[in-house]
Amino acid sequence: MSKSLISVVSPLAPKNFPSIKSVPGVRLSGRAVGLKPSGAKDLMFVELVNKTSIAGVFTRSRCTSAPVDWCKHILPHGRARAIIVNSGNANAFTGSDGEIVVKNTVNKAAQLINCSPEEIYIASTGVIGEPLPPLLIANKLAAVRRGLGAKTWKPAAEAIMTTDTFPKAASRVARIGKAEVIVSGFAKGSGMIAPDMATMLGFIFTNASLPNQVLQKLLFKATENSFNSITVDGDTSTSDTVLLCATGQVSGQPIVKRAGDSILSDFYRALEEVCIDLAQQIVRDGEGAQKFINIIVSGAESKRAARVIGLAIANSPLVKTAVAGEDPNWGRIVMAVGKAGEKASRDNLSIDIGGITITRNGRRVNDYDELLVAKHMKKREITISVDVGIGRGRSSVWTCDLTHGYITINADYRS
Amino acid sequence: MSKSLISVVSPLAPKNFPSIKSVPGVRLSGRAVGLKPSGAKDLMFVELVNKTSIAGVFTRSRCTSAPVDWCKHILPHGRARAIIVNSGNANAFTGSDGEIVVKNTVNKAAQLINCSPEEIYIASTGVIGEPLPPLLIANKLAAVRRGLGAKTWKPAAEAIMTTDTFPKAASRVARIGKAEVIVSGFAKGSGMIAPDMATMLGFIFTNASLPNQVLQKLLFKATENSFNSITVDGDTSTSDTVLLCATGQVSGQPIVKRAGDSILSDFYRALEEVCIDLAQQIVRDGEGAQKFINIIVSGAESKRAARVIGLAIANSPLVKTAVAGEDPNWGRIVMAVGKAGEKASRDNLSIDIGGITITRNGRRVNDYDELLVAKHMKKREITISVDVGIGRGRSSVWTCDLTHGYITINADYRS
Repeated sequence: MSKSLISVVSPLAPKNFPSIKSVPGVRLSGRAVGLKPSGAKDLMFVELVNKTSIAGVFTRSRCTSAPVDWCKHILPHGRARAIIVNSGNANAFTGSDGEIVVKNTVNKAAQLINCSPEEIYIASTGVIGEPLPPLLIANKLAAVRRGLGAKTWKPAAEAIMTTDTFPKAASRVARIGKAEVIVSGFAKGSGMIAPDMATMLGFIFTNASLPNQVLQKLLFKATENSFNSITVDGDTSTSDTVLLCATGQVSGQPIVKRAGDSILSDFYRALEEVCIDLAQQIVRDGEGAQKFINIIVSGAESKRAARVIGLAIANSPLVKTAVAGEDPNWGRIVMAVGKAGEKASRDNLSIDIGGITITRNGRRVNDYDELLVAKHMKKREITISVDVGIGRGRSSVWTCDLTHGYITINADYRS
Repeated sequence: MSKSLISVVSPLAPKNFPSIKSVPGVRLSGRAVGLKPSGAKDLMFVELVNKTSIAGVFTRSRCTSAPVDWCKHILPHGRARAIIVNSGNANAFTGSDGEIVVKNTVNKAAQLINCSPEEIYIASTGVIGEPLPPLLIANKLAAVRRGLGAKTWKPAAEAIMTTDTFPKAASRVARIGKAEVIVSGFAKGSGMIAPDMATMLGFIFTNASLPNQVLQKLLFKATENSFNSITVDGDTSTSDTVLLCATGQVSGQPIVKRAGDSILSDFYRALEEVCIDLAQQIVRDGEGAQKFINIIVSGAESKRAARVIGLAIANSPLVKTAVAGEDPNWGRIVMAVGKAGEKASRDNLSIDIGGITITRNGRRVNDYDELLVAKHMKKREITISVDVGIGRGRSSVWTCDLTHGYITINADYRS
């Protein structure tokens, strides 16, 4: 009965899988190879044209998975020919056996493509601590590779899903000088963490021609404002990975050597938009989520301080359950601001929900109308604005509510 | 129907209110004065003999309540004649009106006792942001004071309850040289935070004769190992307060001037035991708690690092829901260790649940028997031991599981 809580598509999901523009130099495939007991797609293969440059950001966990260790190890080379991702098994906490799986997989892929193993990126997501047969993935690569196509974004996005209830992708167009380039990507995640550490993964592709050091700086910045500004339950996976690949399949683009070059401003805008779009889709698929919460913190000492305060509000179980209960319990927001540890002026604190003023100068306003706030809280999308009255730091953070669905998904079903 | 989830006593509660030894120089009273709509006791008065020394620790929140501000302000004087606590209203985020309530209360109490206002400590717990009538508490003090007695620990402990389902108290005897002294105390809290920031409060009394600077050092240390080693939902109240009072009503006790004096070791043992006993009772009354979780972290870089890792495990919604679901999902413990940010050796990580070995040297042991762990997890008290394989730092942390009851209490009922 409540099984439906898991299998049904999130009420916050987009209506349809978005239209994703092909990226010259990128071909994708997603297939079922038997890692998921359900028989759903579980192996993704992205092949990249020669000389594609790559940037990556990875989990800050101190217990990283074998695939994350591999990607960090090869990242300085800055070139990629393939990204291979399996779902159904995280290959994390599997000791030296896990490293053998990685080695077998990248060697086989390098042989198929005729490139160096240092150009093969991998990620795994699913159950942890469960050994993978050492050649299972390697032996399926040739078959998956036969399915490669330029438009097969949806099967690729589906093949990396675990507890996700919908595939997530986004696409934008940008100009670099007179050249038009495409930025398309897809992601998975149903919470920063989902049952058995289901992990956040994101893969973004562009046909721009940019060196890997430039890509890396742009990706760091875009990640801070997107994937690092969302939370479902505050937990951090062993396997979180975001990769950005630039194929250079573009004509007429000026050569760019610095991430700070102003000619990249429109490209960065598109990249950040894709990252934020994907990040918000992950929140919309948060386990048990019934409401999408947009938290805007201003007046902080710095942008970083604003994000810390925003995440403290977003991670507070009391704030999240208040939203689930459609309860205008703004005192819990005061509590969360206080516990964040960043400078905040209690006597200048302003709180608005859904644009309705609740507090100014450290106290409730005289004409506060709780019924108006209660009405806003019945919506699917809730906006909480907090000004902490110290400086000019500003940040947005996105999260979802904490519901019985989360408990049902994570406690009521044995893994 | 599920209303019973709130009013019923926690399944983890002690069978009876414990036997609490009177402390010479301490008299207590608890009464109902109309702050709680239910008509339950809501005003506590503790009167202390002249020359009682006092130490205190307070919330680290940046948005402290007016009573916390007052206590911090007077603490350097080091003397106390009374502690007054109301429940039903936190007097937090009430601006200058809140400060007027504080002033009226301490002035009236000082007048009744014939002491300085700087010897009157106060705390408030309950709804926040709701103005208190300025003289309501002050006008009731004389009546509450008439109920003072040496044995009335239970009504005093009841008068500070909010969503607590049972009153919490503990008592120990210690020797300082040849003198026998008593350490008795009581506390409230149903989570580090409960609906409307219901706060953790603790009040501990001894007839030992100790200067306030010595008390302060002992209290800091005992608090780290007790109240700062528990968590229910990771939230931090605006009003958390722990006070330790020494009346000096003892004969034959050697004079002690330094907290490090070895003659205090048995006294410190008793103090820490009282603090841990009270802290564990708070966890046992965690909102929706069905299981008590004892987390022992060893092998960390330092004691502090061990506590940080323990709290990361204890605060992880995924670990807490796994315990609620009686699911031996040890991968979530690996995840929590990884996200704590403290040094941990993935390849030396050892995890035991209920004394049953699960992992050694960064992987699952070959003869791991999940059924044995599953059997342990059906109990009311769960023990998780983690050795992170770095150093000799060790710490214990206590928490409870995360259940549908927590969501019901915090989301399903409008405040």
